Amino acid sequence: MGDQYEVSEVGARTLTIPSLRWEELPEGPVVVLLDQTRLPVEEVELVCTDVPALVEAICSLAVRGAPLLGIAGAYGVALAAARGFDVEEAVEALAQARPTAVNLGYGVRRAADAYRAAVAHGAGAPQAAAAALVEARAVHAEDIAASARMAEHGMALLGELLPGGGHRILTHCNTGALVSGGEGTALAVALAAHRAGELRRLWVDETRPLLQGARLTAYEAARAGMAYTVLSDGAAGSLFAGGEVDAVLIGADRIAADGSVANKVGSYPLAVLAQYHHVPFVVVAPTSTVDLETEEGADIEVEQRPGQEVTEFSLPAAQGAGAVPGTGVPVAPLGAQAYNPAFDVTPPELVTAIVTEAGVVSPVTRDRLAEVCSTSRWSKSRSGNGMMAE
Amino acid sequence: MGDQYEVSEVGARTLTIPSLRWEELPEGPVVVLLDQTRLPVEEVELVCTDVPALVEAICSLAVRGAPLLGIAGAYGVALAAARGFDVEEAVEALAQARPTAVNLGYGVRRAADAYRAAVAHGAGAPQAAAAALVEARAVHAEDIAASARMAEHGMALLGELLPGGGHRILTHCNTGALVSGGEGTALAVALAAHRAGELRRLWVDETRPLLQGARLTAYEAARAGMAYTVLSDGAAGSLFAGGEVDAVLIGADRIAADGSVANKVGSYPLAVLAQYHHVPFVVVAPTSTVDLETEEGADIEVEQRPGQEVTEFSLPAAQGAGAVPGTGVPVAPLGAQAYNPAFDVTPPELVTAIVTEAGVVSPVTRDRLAEVCSTSRWSKSRSGNGMMAE
Repeated sequence: MGDQYEVSEVGARTLTIPSLRWEELPEGPVVVLLDQTRLPVEEVELVCTDVPALVEAICSLAVRGAPLLGIAGAYGVALAAARGFDVEEAVEALAQARPTAVNLGYGVRRAADAYRAAVAHGAGAPQAAAAALVEARAVHAEDIAASARMAEHGMALLGELLPGGGHRILTHCNTGALVSGGEGTALAVALAAHRAGELRRLWVDETRPLLQGARLTAYEAARAGMAYTVLSDGAAGSLFAGGEVDAVLIGADRIAADGSVANKVGSYPLAVLAQYHHVPFVVVAPTSTVDLETEEGADIEVEQRPGQEVTEFSLPAAQGAGAVPGTGVPVAPLGAQAYNPAFDVTPPELVTAIVTEAGVVSPVTRDRLAEVCSTSRWSKSRSGNGMMAE
Repeated sequence: MGDQYEVSEVGARTLTIPSLRWEELPEGPVVVLLDQTRLPVEEVELVCTDVPALVEAICSLAVRGAPLLGIAGAYGVALAAARGFDVEEAVEALAQARPTAVNLGYGVRRAADAYRAAVAHGAGAPQAAAAALVEARAVHAEDIAASARMAEHGMALLGELLPGGGHRILTHCNTGALVSGGEGTALAVALAAHRAGELRRLWVDETRPLLQGARLTAYEAARAGMAYTVLSDGAAGSLFAGGEVDAVLIGADRIAADGSVANKVGSYPLAVLAQYHHVPFVVVAPTSTVDLETEEGADIEVEQRPGQEVTEFSLPAAQGAGAVPGTGVPVAPLGAQAYNPAFDVTPPELVTAIVTEAGVVSPVTRDRLAEVCSTSRWSKSRSGNGMMAE
């Protein structure tokens, strides 16, 4: 590991969770991360003073979530440049830290391109470093703006679907400030409803096997002072049956051109339950998540993860995809096989609406999805898109 | 605790799990139990030489499952009588060990009535004790026979619904030899299919929050040499979507007169998924589970359990309803509220068939259910029926 140190006990609770920030210290700039592997038990910040430290934080899932990884990658390049490290080496190391995380590569590329362009135009090292930082801040700012626009569009949609407020919203996995420079995707909408006094209850699926709902979404909800309740994923059925869910709001990891939504495993059963109970099932995701090169749901390759995530229980500090298999407490017989897909795919006919920063897609059709995407900045910079980065 | 000692490392693996047995040792009779709180990590038998030891085992969930509790209760009375303890005191202590477990009271009552009848007819202590033991053995034998008949009826039904064999069966919670004197309910059917070479795969829902699927059903499946795979409950949706489930087989904790089925939370979402994917949803339960006094599903009171079962992870030895809240590893923020119903209720229109020892109810109608129940021995001995004993 590089030069990374911890600061425990983050000060007073604020409404904005400092999941990642750039800070200029007297001894030089640093990237400060909230260590997500320790949540919700401890709030510990990791201070990364060089790129290996940041790479280590990405690999260990201390920082995670597609948009946030893009921001971390961009700041990583800026950090290398500002501290006088080899920028091309940093670009390589950062992009490889989680090779399937498309956003990470995207953020790294944007800051690296700005740096290289400055150098090519004859800028000195400090000016080129400044250019990389400006671009990193732009990636960060765009993500914050996208969150805010998704929240706006989502609120308007909730107003149409559920006039009168008092929403009881069910969510799955983690989609808030911890995955974003801003306030996230689905949770940003719930948070906007909360601030408007229109959220009666946030139902938080614990989200097995890695418990991102119980560990991370509940943490975000608690920080924001939302009325929330955690449940095991199978208990959602009882809530629907009891008429206790007004809408389902989830994020997405990849959306195919036909509107099929790949998201954390356990999302599809919620979509089927929502339809059976005539409850809106709403996906909130930036247009960067739409992969127009993937024709339909069946074309989405779903990552199969180690069975030990199911057959063993890992302590919170070691939880997440980076946990070492075989080091947890066994909860199934030795040698038990497990089926552990990371994602499932919900077909468009079960999705009431897809809320993006560029507008709402509803009903979910191929044409309307393409239309909304064409108005976004992403339509110009698509390359090998689709992010499957939990 | 009374006189209870442990025997580790149960000998060679056999097809019949010794979940409970009566044994005559030179120093007197004992009730021997497989300690279910230690599964699947350790196989440890508890030897109970007196009633307080057995009561302790019931309270700690070392022995659990509605039918098995009835058997344990009956042998407990026989043990008190054979060892010369106060039988009426034993009856009281056993029946109160888990007051909501109707089967426990039923088993205790049967052995106690036999004992009292013998005494009333002038039998000496040894003869009265023998009468109690005969009755306990009868309770045990009847449960074994009921399991075998459910397996037969279930196999015949599978043959009709899924001609050709090669079944891929999904199950939830724990319904095998660990809850029964015989081979259980739903799992007894899967086991029969396995023995007939007709089981291609047993999909085992881990069954949050207490993980009875991963811990206990997987253990039973492994012991029986079945091809099984554990999954987190939310991953069942992907299996249905992929066409990997031919039938769902579950047990029941209580069945109302209209055919509504209360079973472990997470069963209802499977029923909705099964209907959406045109997959048979089959409930396997003895007629003793049918509570004709409960008119319909809405009348079934669902037990709400401590939120800590969801917000904390307890180590296997301490798992189960007897685990002490507040002693596990937190997996949600301090003070997080949890919604934790023990059961959910599946309406009859989602149930393809109810398989009992007295025959198959399909389609599930009030009249057909009453008809099948009227042919069972339970129809004569119903009193305060309905068992909610996980």
